[in-house]
Amino acid sequence: MKSKAAIFTEIGKPLIVDEIEVDDPGPTECLVKLDATGLCHTEIWYMGGGDSVDYAAMSPRVLGHEGGGVVVKAGSQVTSLKEGDHVVPLYISECGTCVECRSPETNLCSYLDDKGYYEGVMPDGKPRFHWHGQDVKHFMGTSTFSQYTVVPEVALAKIREDAPLDRVCLLGCAITTGVGAVLWTAKVQPGASVAVFGCGPIGLNVVQGARIAGAGKIIAVDLKPERLQMAKELGATHLINAKEHGGTGTGAVKELTGGGADFSFEATGNTAVMRQAFESVRYGGGKCVLIGVARTGEEVSLTPRMLIAGRVLTGTAFGGCKGRSQLPELVDYYMDGSLKIDEMVTKEIGLEQINEAFEWMKQDQGYRYIVKY
Amino acid sequence: MKSKAAIFTEIGKPLIVDEIEVDDPGPTECLVKLDATGLCHTEIWYMGGGDSVDYAAMSPRVLGHEGGGVVVKAGSQVTSLKEGDHVVPLYISECGTCVECRSPETNLCSYLDDKGYYEGVMPDGKPRFHWHGQDVKHFMGTSTFSQYTVVPEVALAKIREDAPLDRVCLLGCAITTGVGAVLWTAKVQPGASVAVFGCGPIGLNVVQGARIAGAGKIIAVDLKPERLQMAKELGATHLINAKEHGGTGTGAVKELTGGGADFSFEATGNTAVMRQAFESVRYGGGKCVLIGVARTGEEVSLTPRMLIAGRVLTGTAFGGCKGRSQLPELVDYYMDGSLKIDEMVTKEIGLEQINEAFEWMKQDQGYRYIVKY
Repeated sequence: MKSKAAIFTEIGKPLIVDEIEVDDPGPTECLVKLDATGLCHTEIWYMGGGDSVDYAAMSPRVLGHEGGGVVVKAGSQVTSLKEGDHVVPLYISECGTCVECRSPETNLCSYLDDKGYYEGVMPDGKPRFHWHGQDVKHFMGTSTFSQYTVVPEVALAKIREDAPLDRVCLLGCAITTGVGAVLWTAKVQPGASVAVFGCGPIGLNVVQGARIAGAGKIIAVDLKPERLQMAKELGATHLINAKEHGGTGTGAVKELTGGGADFSFEATGNTAVMRQAFESVRYGGGKCVLIGVARTGEEVSLTPRMLIAGRVLTGTAFGGCKGRSQLPELVDYYMDGSLKIDEMVTKEIGLEQINEAFEWMKQDQGYRYIVKY
Repeated sequence: MKSKAAIFTEIGKPLIVDEIEVDDPGPTECLVKLDATGLCHTEIWYMGGGDSVDYAAMSPRVLGHEGGGVVVKAGSQVTSLKEGDHVVPLYISECGTCVECRSPETNLCSYLDDKGYYEGVMPDGKPRFHWHGQDVKHFMGTSTFSQYTVVPEVALAKIREDAPLDRVCLLGCAITTGVGAVLWTAKVQPGASVAVFGCGPIGLNVVQGARIAGAGKIIAVDLKPERLQMAKELGATHLINAKEHGGTGTGAVKELTGGGADFSFEATGNTAVMRQAFESVRYGGGKCVLIGVARTGEEVSLTPRMLIAGRVLTGTAFGGCKGRSQLPELVDYYMDGSLKIDEMVTKEIGLEQINEAFEWMKQDQGYRYIVKY
């Protein structure tokens, strides 16, 4: 089958928008026709050479991991999905049977780890994409920059059919990461104080998660007034422009919370800010959750005594969300109005504008861009 | 009242064993006659100038914080203790009413924080010790290097009277710190895998705690064969001499646990070992607890991605033990034979040998030294 796609070929080069060939799904996979995909900074990071993979061996490749679509063909052994089901592809699968899936503490399903996930192929060791006679690698198991994509059954969350796919596609990464970090990783309790360091697309969803969790104080920290204003619209009760506090929100958060927040979240990927977020939680049980992805080789440095005094440092991937079972809850939050998505969509574009949109993102213009197929 | 005591006067100088004057307890305090006190590395650290206090202002001072004794006089407002009660002084109080005492997440009672604890005085702002006409400061609210000491009621754990005071005195610090880190901070579940980095007096008690918690694998890591042997006697199921693995136990722990331990504990105070302990826990929920106290100014450095992958880093003080309510449980474990103490007592000494014993400790000779009054 033919599919339009945006193809990564080389570090630092724009994606090539062209037609590719997509194979039928294997027995445990589905062919999905995407309605839309979000554009995430992870792709910018990858396209810039940030990953530690062998780029030559992994190219060409179809990137993309925030999709919303409909199953058009289910593999012969697929039991939980059928043609016509609405789905969000998951870059962290949920097989339901591995050690991690059976643990209540983690969402990091390891089922696909030795089944081609990291090699950019499907479980039989081959990719389902081809271009000018060449194999094309998958990315994060999702490859949503192709209108038709093939995804293993365990990596597809079935969602309700009345949810608009060009909005809930964003649950494929950013929104779930931010909201889930609050609900599932930190398990924020009603009335708790929450500090959010960084109000970009992830941090804003942490703010939303804190509002949904019923946090008492939601303190947003950023350097840009317009982002702080957006945080306020999404639920922040206090705004701190770190520029006005010597470049760090730590002191102001401690002052607003009488010594330290119950929870802090870091959503910038900057290791200095990670430390600031950690140091802003209260002694005796204050918890800091890292969400931002630091550059390869960068480290975060801490004073051990702050840990001895009962602070907890952890991190989250995909918001601790077990995708197949928990992502549908977030769709419900969107449909009942408690989770805002539309407000964060800056622009809808066609696939041919994808490189232009990445440039806007690099300049921190707006929040979220969505490709409509 | 006269009391024999070992008095700290100056950084780097031996303690002076002499007679001091001890006042009557204030209304919320008790006068305690100690039967014995342990010697801990915290005193060596303090005597060497490791603390950040103003030493001139805080000297002379009576150190010591691992005591076992009997109440000889209770202040007029003391309600929970009376003459003859057996007690262990607590350097972390449990008032039962502060924010921290009401939280199930922490034992760091803040009740005494602004009541002279850090100034080395009792709640009325004065010390109860005098020497040659000079005031003598308290230390950690316990000052167990004086046979008679004055301690606030909220910082005295009442214990059963059949427990030998010259053994359970060690519950005042090291044993509770190690065992409690497992039971109360990490909450190790039966069957879990546990790695213990450092098998000194604290780490050995982590091993014991893991055994009491029913851990499946208890992996002891140290550089000294005799310490590893002791760990084995106290419950370790696997021994790793880090010297035989390039100076780090991380790789060997990961191999023994199929990818990483469920829990690791760091009990050396060395920041490089802290990192090794952190890196030895499994992705998706592995938890590392720091116990050792690093030197002032030293930091621990981490790769943020290891946190993003669901690892948790925290620390513990006094093993997360709420002293008045939980320390008696450990006395029961000792009395029923499940908690070993006698095996770790290297030598009992008289107070006049205290400086000599500190020298043995600096040379890592043996495990625990106990002063019998």
